[in-house]
Amino acid sequence: MTDQLERMNQALSVALAYHRAWTGKNVDEALSHVSDDIVCDAPGGTMRGIEQYRPFLANFVPIVTGYDMVAALGDAETAVLVYDLHTIPVDSGLTCECFTVRENRITRSRLIFDRTPYTAGRQQTS
Amino acid sequence: MTDQLERMNQALSVALAYHRAWTGKNVDEALSHVSDDIVCDAPGGTMRGIEQYRPFLANFVPIVTGYDMVAALGDAETAVLVYDLHTIPVDSGLTCECFTVRENRITRSRLIFDRTPYTAGRQQTS
Repeated sequence: MTDQLERMNQALSVALAYHRAWTGKNVDEALSHVSDDIVCDAPGGTMRGIEQYRPFLANFVPIVTGYDMVAALGDAETAVLVYDLHTIPVDSGLTCECFTVRENRITRSRLIFDRTPYTAGRQQTS
Repeated sequence: MTDQLERMNQALSVALAYHRAWTGKNVDEALSHVSDDIVCDAPGGTMRGIEQYRPFLANFVPIVTGYDMVAALGDAETAVLVYDLHTIPVDSGLTCECFTVRENRITRSRLIFDRTPYTAGRQQTS
């Protein structure tokens, strides 16, 4: 039964480990939970492979100042995290990440947030 | 055990009933699953109460042409739906709704999507 529960929550465990790492600015640790073949659908487009994903994450991490978790749910292969993300340019931005996890690695990530406040910030400062 | 499972999945059942209704353009049926005191955090701001939420939903429903569900997860009080929403102005838009459900009604909704493609469409046609 414990094994079964662990399998049922496996995707969420991986997602939370990944989340703790990158929000703690540990990019290498975060990427250790990510498949080399990751496909990530982000608002700006789709990234394919760790070589595209690594700089995306590495460039984003320095502006993160914190988060408040709203929901963390998962099953054997899918996990969803919903959180309010705090960054230097945008104080509060609801964010959703929907992960597919296979063999303890994130193989697919769908990242959902509204880019509008980030764009507005850039327009104001440019 | 069945009762326990039903309670554990209660929020997801309500969320899916709500989702089926509004994507089927049945606004009244959808709102029957929503508390009069709903608080909805949407990208454009926070709506409070059914009197603010009803016109928001009623105005949005006519432009919806379909969706592909990506993930549907829940527990006793929280449910998250992730779907690719198809609308007349934006062919494909990943969307997340995170619901809090109490006494079979949605009391809180956090709606996450990128407004950028909708804004771009308005700019192109104006």
